[in-house]
Amino acid sequence: MERFFNPNSIAIVGASANPLKGGYRILKNILTGFKGDLYPVNPRYADIDGLTCYPSIDAIPGPVDLAIIFVPALAAVQAVTDCAAKGILRVMIQSAGFAETGDQGKALQATLLKVKKESGMRIWGPNCMGFVDAVNKKVFSFALSSIWEDGLLPGKVSLIVQSGMLSAGFLIDTVTHGTMGISKACSIGNKADVDECDLLEYLIDDPDTEVIGTYLESIPDGQRFIAACRRSPKPIVVLKGGKSEKGAEAAMSHTASLAGNGAIVSGALAQVGVIEAEDFKQMMDLCRTLAMEKGQPAPRNGKIAVLTFSGGAGIVSADFIDARELETAALSRETIQELQTVFPDWMPPSNPVDLWPAIEKNGFGKVYRTAFGAVSKDPNVDAILYHVFIPGGQKPIDLTRMAAMAHQEGKPIFCWMLGHRDTAHAFQAHTQRLGIPVFRELHRAVECMAAYFQYQSFAASISRDSDLSLSNIPENNLLISPAESGVLDEHCAKKILTRAGIPTVTEAVAATPGEAADQGSTMGFPIVMKGLSPGQVHKTEENLVRLHIHSANQARTEFQSLKSILGEEGYILVQKQVQGELELIVGLIRDSQFGPCVMCGLGGIMAEALNDTAFAVAPLSMNEALALIDRLETRKLLDGFRGNPPVDKNAFAEVLVRLGELGRANPRIQEIDINPLIISNGRPIAVDATIILDND
Amino acid sequence: MERFFNPNSIAIVGASANPLKGGYRILKNILTGFKGDLYPVNPRYADIDGLTCYPSIDAIPGPVDLAIIFVPALAAVQAVTDCAAKGILRVMIQSAGFAETGDQGKALQATLLKVKKESGMRIWGPNCMGFVDAVNKKVFSFALSSIWEDGLLPGKVSLIVQSGMLSAGFLIDTVTHGTMGISKACSIGNKADVDECDLLEYLIDDPDTEVIGTYLESIPDGQRFIAACRRSPKPIVVLKGGKSEKGAEAAMSHTASLAGNGAIVSGALAQVGVIEAEDFKQMMDLCRTLAMEKGQPAPRNGKIAVLTFSGGAGIVSADFIDARELETAALSRETIQELQTVFPDWMPPSNPVDLWPAIEKNGFGKVYRTAFGAVSKDPNVDAILYHVFIPGGQKPIDLTRMAAMAHQEGKPIFCWMLGHRDTAHAFQAHTQRLGIPVFRELHRAVECMAAYFQYQSFAASISRDSDLSLSNIPENNLLISPAESGVLDEHCAKKILTRAGIPTVTEAVAATPGEAADQGSTMGFPIVMKGLSPGQVHKTEENLVRLHIHSANQARTEFQSLKSILGEEGYILVQKQVQGELELIVGLIRDSQFGPCVMCGLGGIMAEALNDTAFAVAPLSMNEALALIDRLETRKLLDGFRGNPPVDKNAFAEVLVRLGELGRANPRIQEIDINPLIISNGRPIAVDATIILDND
Repeated sequence: MERFFNPNSIAIVGASANPLKGGYRILKNILTGFKGDLYPVNPRYADIDGLTCYPSIDAIPGPVDLAIIFVPALAAVQAVTDCAAKGILRVMIQSAGFAETGDQGKALQATLLKVKKESGMRIWGPNCMGFVDAVNKKVFSFALSSIWEDGLLPGKVSLIVQSGMLSAGFLIDTVTHGTMGISKACSIGNKADVDECDLLEYLIDDPDTEVIGTYLESIPDGQRFIAACRRSPKPIVVLKGGKSEKGAEAAMSHTASLAGNGAIVSGALAQVGVIEAEDFKQMMDLCRTLAMEKGQPAPRNGKIAVLTFSGGAGIVSADFIDARELETAALSRETIQELQTVFPDWMPPSNPVDLWPAIEKNGFGKVYRTAFGAVSKDPNVDAILYHVFIPGGQKPIDLTRMAAMAHQEGKPIFCWMLGHRDTAHAFQAHTQRLGIPVFRELHRAVECMAAYFQYQSFAASISRDSDLSLSNIPENNLLISPAESGVLDEHCAKKILTRAGIPTVTEAVAATPGEAADQGSTMGFPIVMKGLSPGQVHKTEENLVRLHIHSANQARTEFQSLKSILGEEGYILVQKQVQGELELIVGLIRDSQFGPCVMCGLGGIMAEALNDTAFAVAPLSMNEALALIDRLETRKLLDGFRGNPPVDKNAFAEVLVRLGELGRANPRIQEIDINPLIISNGRPIAVDATIILDND
Repeated sequence: MERFFNPNSIAIVGASANPLKGGYRILKNILTGFKGDLYPVNPRYADIDGLTCYPSIDAIPGPVDLAIIFVPALAAVQAVTDCAAKGILRVMIQSAGFAETGDQGKALQATLLKVKKESGMRIWGPNCMGFVDAVNKKVFSFALSSIWEDGLLPGKVSLIVQSGMLSAGFLIDTVTHGTMGISKACSIGNKADVDECDLLEYLIDDPDTEVIGTYLESIPDGQRFIAACRRSPKPIVVLKGGKSEKGAEAAMSHTASLAGNGAIVSGALAQVGVIEAEDFKQMMDLCRTLAMEKGQPAPRNGKIAVLTFSGGAGIVSADFIDARELETAALSRETIQELQTVFPDWMPPSNPVDLWPAIEKNGFGKVYRTAFGAVSKDPNVDAILYHVFIPGGQKPIDLTRMAAMAHQEGKPIFCWMLGHRDTAHAFQAHTQRLGIPVFRELHRAVECMAAYFQYQSFAASISRDSDLSLSNIPENNLLISPAESGVLDEHCAKKILTRAGIPTVTEAVAATPGEAADQGSTMGFPIVMKGLSPGQVHKTEENLVRLHIHSANQARTEFQSLKSILGEEGYILVQKQVQGELELIVGLIRDSQFGPCVMCGLGGIMAEALNDTAFAVAPLSMNEALALIDRLETRKLLDGFRGNPPVDKNAFAEVLVRLGELGRANPRIQEIDINPLIISNGRPIAVDATIILDND
């Protein structure tokens, strides 16, 4: 990818001398910052604004690192062929008219890929807007120059956006608000060849990028994407469109993208520490927060000191802080004492700290220095949420000293601002240069603060969690015999699970009534007896499950009864009846984009009503499996309730890790369903299970 | 309240000639729009800017409708006494230094109330910023004049804000953004006398107000507040601070407000159709949306046509629409055909409608007219969500014609905008004048759209639901005998519930083993037997509950066993064992702010883990009770699952209505707890219950 971003020479196919045309804008845009050799190509001109113009690609005298193509689709295909002939190995096609325009365009795009394959070139686009590199002043795009001329702020956030119009909209909105610095903003269009994974991998290693934000409609190579995120030492923010059913339909019709299973996408992203955004501006806010804040690693439930001009806003902040699983800090005695020196007697300071009465008594300067100084030093405080009201017509507060005090102690400041449109905007621009993100909506400020702590805590955990190949299961034990195929019944399925180290219920096949009775006596009553017949999935509905069998006699009777239903087909399973305190459901599914994924959730009738399930991509580390469990809404049930013992989460997590390993070792496994996984005395036991294999 | 807002004469106690003082600003502010008699009062001046100034209140020659007081607290108390002496019956105290400043201030505030009581005057404040009436240009406040000089836009939204600084912040922010018209913005401060209920009731009848927004830390008279909301023909938006535990603590320390139980507050507000906001700007956005939009009454799950410049934004919109329980409209065949006339052949139109390819082919004007025209007429479309990208340096789109087309068909338009800060802002201001609310965040646009449909659907339902006294229970049946006191055991409790018409399990007290056996035979086995002793609450833990009794013999044995535990105390209850498909929990609690409140939720162990409960204030209409049930997260369970019959929601709702009636008829009831309410064959039966009475 490096040659796309830093070519020594560029050919612009479709360069134009007409200032109203994109082919002119591309040229002008590139000229603003590019210092290498530039070769406009267009048979209609001898030169453009004094720059020699070439009639064709093969007429270019020197070697060309990158060709940017902006001619109609048919001509673009010819140009790509010409590029290949000249040995140009990086081509960016900004023209539209390809796969997004129906069958004819799809055929053209297929031709591009053929040329790429034969020549070994890489193709960016088509149907894209290229990129803007604000740090190095490189604008390889036909976009209107107003975007950067309006004050593109160089910064640390790089963006990957699938949709061209959106990336333009993003950029103009961001640039003209002047509240966020950009490193590279990339529009990837049809992704015929270069895709989000290529760019993600490049940006992870790009020294100019510290945070990566991306809007995507699909993540076709989920496994590669997740692998890249996993190794990223930089925060990544993803807005994934098409997570609802209707959204997925819209994605299908927009870029023919298979949006995939929203729950799996979210699970996979959470697993590798990606911050998931829901909306466009929110994504930008998350990115700029993560790019600015440099505090000490702090626990996920960061303890927040709120400094406010309004008790009411303090109250609502405390509500938001609670909702986001942060904490309103309990200020230390020293802090309270220091605050008391500027507070009126009648008002004991507490957090949220309503500074207004103190300001009325002692003025802004003294109160701010005291308050910021005190909470910055307070060991009970991890971050400061500062509220400011900026009326018009006055010089707004300068936070330089306050920022220095807090940042010296490793405490980030987040700022919520209410006030006069213009004055407040000026305050925001100035304050953000101090490394303080400023927000106009309080909930957004707290949301970004929560994302900051979430990422910090995740980043701290990965250093302890590098070993993914933790599975100590001998590979032989994981492999399923090629003789097996189709839907495996519960007994076969549990034999495989047992070999993989997953605890399963004690059970045996009984050939005769006497055998059933003996097995019951050996494993201890009560037992369960089940009739299994090939292809049988609804055992309960067919009266093939008998519970609460308390004696050898009863076992014999039930054997006869089951046999009479089964006939010659199938066999009879004797199972220890497991008394449990909780029913869970765990499974493995093979996703077309993310490969084998592990699922866990609440079992029983609640499962259907609540749909409280969480997904992660295999392989899982133990930490990832524990985090997966922690994503269940009903996780509180696992901590023990009504006198029940808490669930052994390590044992539960191990089941999930091993399920993932099983899926990875056997590409033929389409699905594993353990339902229920009963928690008995805190430990998980697979009681019923199915494995679905593909048939080849 | 009318005389506060429309006095014929005003005295300003503490008027000043010093332009830096609040006492000068108040005078100048009032002069901007007030046409009546104005009497500045200050012994230090003979006149202020040519207006005669009076040395004292009693020196004022004419009658005074309203006195506005802005002198230190001690002098303010004297002034209030002087007002009473002069027969002034409306006093607004903007000065601080009262109950918010500790014990001394509290004593001063108590004196105010004494004067009020003796004179019959009404007092607004103290510690408030008064109000701004933008429609009638009345500014009765010491606030900086920059607020309205900067372009206060007259409109239909009135605000009630408890906190002074917040209301100032709100106003400046709103005014300088120019995106929302205000009618009356009221700051109520300490609420010594005039409170949110007085203002709410006034604004509900105020012809200049169409939407009411309010930020409150407490709703001390919850019953009056809810009654006012219930009769309001105008949308009300409430942001209630202090709903979390930490937030409630902060509210306590800020204005000594008891924040109350957040779940009850939310339940009560939802019950009477109040839109609950979570954040300050969001509250303003909800208000301006509800003030602008005038569509036809539409179903709650409004069907939305999305017109976008970006397929990606369309996809994310569909996700949000789904999450907010709206629907992405299935466009009619006619609409599709009409869109096809401007779309390129390769792109079949679908909703979300990505207009960009059509615009590239046919230009903005034609495509917009066609698209807005088609979806406006489409009977499958209830509203239009329009996305616009406003680059800098161009004349933005004028939606006048499009708005006319849509509004003529009764279809509101909501607009999400991305673009150049200034150009976009100008577009927003212009477009909002067309009755189209414009948002900079997509999720907010959808959220406000959802609130619009929610309110529409609520407003449509109240006309069908005016009868609250629906209870057909004879009052005699509701009344609890004065002989009862303390905690009633389940048998006594269920006798009361039965009289109130709530279905309860068949049960009887057995005095002997033989009686128990006979009762079991009569009601039919299996039965449950319970030992009840006075003050006993943990029956299960003490082994006083025996389930699954299948025979007369077993009944006799269990009787003896229970008797041996109970000893001479208590008695034995024989109960039909109810086989149910679902366990619920319902109850009544007497809230200090809202009075008797009805609660319902999921029962069993899930109740603890999920805490899925919903509250409403008694009395409930049947519709309100049905809506209450519908607020449960787990309501899906009620629709029948795994072959179970659906719950008879009317029967369930009736239980809730009757519980509320019981609470209203007996002020001594502190709590009723029915746990479980078993659903058996779809019908609710109270199986265990407790009633707690106070002891006098």
